[in-house]
Amino acid sequence: MFQRPRGTRDFAPDEMAKRQWAAAAMRDVAVSRGFKEIQMPIFEDLELFTKKSGPGVVEELYAFKDKGDRDIALRPEMTAQVMRFYVSDMASMPKPLKLFYFGPCFRYENPQSGRYREFFQFGAEIIGSNTPETDAEAVALASSMLEATGLGNYVIRIGYIGILRGILKGLNLPDDKIAEGMHYLDKNDEAKFSSFAQANRLPVDRIQSMMEIRNMKGGVDVLDRLGESSAKGYLLEFMECLSLLGVRNCQLDLGIVRGLDYYTGMVFEIDAPALGAEKQVAGGGSYDLVPLFGGEQVFTTGFAIGFDRILIARERESPIEAKLCIDAYVVPMSDSTRKTALGIVKALRGRGISADFDLMRRSLSKNLKYAASIGARSVVIVGDKESAKGAVTLRNMASGDQKEVKIDSIADEISGLK
Amino acid sequence: MFQRPRGTRDFAPDEMAKRQWAAAAMRDVAVSRGFKEIQMPIFEDLELFTKKSGPGVVEELYAFKDKGDRDIALRPEMTAQVMRFYVSDMASMPKPLKLFYFGPCFRYENPQSGRYREFFQFGAEIIGSNTPETDAEAVALASSMLEATGLGNYVIRIGYIGILRGILKGLNLPDDKIAEGMHYLDKNDEAKFSSFAQANRLPVDRIQSMMEIRNMKGGVDVLDRLGESSAKGYLLEFMECLSLLGVRNCQLDLGIVRGLDYYTGMVFEIDAPALGAEKQVAGGGSYDLVPLFGGEQVFTTGFAIGFDRILIARERESPIEAKLCIDAYVVPMSDSTRKTALGIVKALRGRGISADFDLMRRSLSKNLKYAASIGARSVVIVGDKESAKGAVTLRNMASGDQKEVKIDSIADEISGLK
Repeated sequence: MFQRPRGTRDFAPDEMAKRQWAAAAMRDVAVSRGFKEIQMPIFEDLELFTKKSGPGVVEELYAFKDKGDRDIALRPEMTAQVMRFYVSDMASMPKPLKLFYFGPCFRYENPQSGRYREFFQFGAEIIGSNTPETDAEAVALASSMLEATGLGNYVIRIGYIGILRGILKGLNLPDDKIAEGMHYLDKNDEAKFSSFAQANRLPVDRIQSMMEIRNMKGGVDVLDRLGESSAKGYLLEFMECLSLLGVRNCQLDLGIVRGLDYYTGMVFEIDAPALGAEKQVAGGGSYDLVPLFGGEQVFTTGFAIGFDRILIARERESPIEAKLCIDAYVVPMSDSTRKTALGIVKALRGRGISADFDLMRRSLSKNLKYAASIGARSVVIVGDKESAKGAVTLRNMASGDQKEVKIDSIADEISGLK
Repeated sequence: MFQRPRGTRDFAPDEMAKRQWAAAAMRDVAVSRGFKEIQMPIFEDLELFTKKSGPGVVEELYAFKDKGDRDIALRPEMTAQVMRFYVSDMASMPKPLKLFYFGPCFRYENPQSGRYREFFQFGAEIIGSNTPETDAEAVALASSMLEATGLGNYVIRIGYIGILRGILKGLNLPDDKIAEGMHYLDKNDEAKFSSFAQANRLPVDRIQSMMEIRNMKGGVDVLDRLGESSAKGYLLEFMECLSLLGVRNCQLDLGIVRGLDYYTGMVFEIDAPALGAEKQVAGGGSYDLVPLFGGEQVFTTGFAIGFDRILIARERESPIEAKLCIDAYVVPMSDSTRKTALGIVKALRGRGISADFDLMRRSLSKNLKYAASIGARSVVIVGDKESAKGAVTLRNMASGDQKEVKIDSIADEISGLK
């Protein structure tokens, strides 16, 4: 027997119905806010991903050579692709450009709860605008996409990477040193950050204030402890926009650094506490990536949502009801009524009624059992006697009631049951 | 500047809107007929595909070793995956099992019109039933999926592989010889078939009748030229089922062989003549594959549809109208009305009205131009004077008419425009 590859999943009909329901709900929210869907290939030149995430990322990639000896890789995420696509084909589109996308991504890592080698992400970007309401619109979309799945218990943590980085910049450190320091902060590695601070002779009071800022978490009032700055002004305005747009469950967390160097201002992460240790379900911020891919500098705010984790978190709150069903299941009682039955199937489908029929020429009792298994709302029984006088028996599967119905009026009767 | 990999595509918003519209239409038809969606991984163990299609398929595959030194491959098609999935997880589900699936597949070949290295397929299977109405239901679904996209000009060619194979079987040839002969017929290689016939001393009259059967094409009456057989009885009944289910554009073509050995009875291909040389858009039939993947023998009928080709054929008939649009675009006229504007956006969205707003703090004229570019049906202009008295200006983008509207009644006004 063949096994599916480790860390991948098959989705059976019931599971897939839930996933399609949730994906459609999330997509609908994005579209209803003026975000437009795009799609990029499953694989890319390897360099596209190393350019964005550094050569270290190769360890986690499905990377290989194609038959033309090119280094390619299955995408581990989609933002680099969007940047490439933007630079080559979308740079002249009207700004702001609001985009979203959904699809499988791949990472070679040890499979565990909520972590798969093939996983599914939603993502969105707003390109070409840098106002507080732009960033708020991005965070509002992320939170509304979670809410569209019915997820209620989540926390949005908001930071501003420019504050900590601004302090290092103010000390006239070169860019690579700033990146090194930010990396230690991201990894919560205080020991390494201390050595780094000593080696670069950073003033003690500045280190002290960086450590204090890292621990600023809570409502807007934590900003009272921050000196006046453009960052503070921005965050106040941004938080007000979030509130005006109705975004719930927000708190400030100025310790958020996020791994990568390209974030410039606001950063955010969303946690679903129901997931325990692997609780982060979304993350993003404003960043500056387009020049890396050969385009002109342009403001960008974006995020990614872990679709698989959202579903796990949502189902821990309550099961998703996405039952498969069909309006009518048609059963001929004998060979001689089969033609009539097929004609009824055709007529029902022509009227927009979802209809299936007995393909296996089984007994009525077997057919009723099967009809129940596929969630049929009604069964149309085409008997010899009734069909001779232009009628059939219509069984309501919820109540078990049966009645004789003229063939001409079955569609109306079944529409009435819906 | 980075290039996307050769033979792959990015889909920009307008193109993606068309694709999503067509995919949703095709999906809806399948669901409305009791087919249930499933999904399998993008890659599999290489052996899954060589098992089904022979070692030669490796030439066309994106095959590589993962970091665990396993041979894996991007899927070139999805039927082998469905069989694997069926054997491991779905064998005990109620029969008939009606399944469908949609997704990208990959083939390393020279890109040309309508042929891509990353291409998209719909597929469907009915597992567990072998009546003529089962096969008819599969063909009916394929044709209805094409029609759901608006494609009008297509031809369904129907054959029965058992007839030609039956003649070779009747001559007591071993299975590998039968496969060899069928292979030459599939490739239309009459010279090789002649040598094959001579080498195996096939009776001339039998070869003669095979050649005649290969040329039988047309309406049901071509079956008059076929001697009585179970195949003929089956085809008569099958063609009647198709007619009862309302399937149009069918013709018999007893010369259809299809490449692979696992087809057992009915086979079909659908052509869209608008596509010229690469005109085949769908193909399938009844086959016997489950035992190859370790399961018990079970009747199966299925098909695959080339989604990209369908779209090309459809758009050659007439452009797909899938315009992106949004109900309302909200513009604050000054910093002081921005809060009011955001409140209006929140209220509209809460009422299920799709709404976007000025993120870039631009002038009214720039905002109106942008609103037109994103297909906004109306623009809500939040001026200082009007908003001071609880009103805004509502502009109908189709007519250019503007009127003053109370903030409380904007949602109703905009709903009225839909």
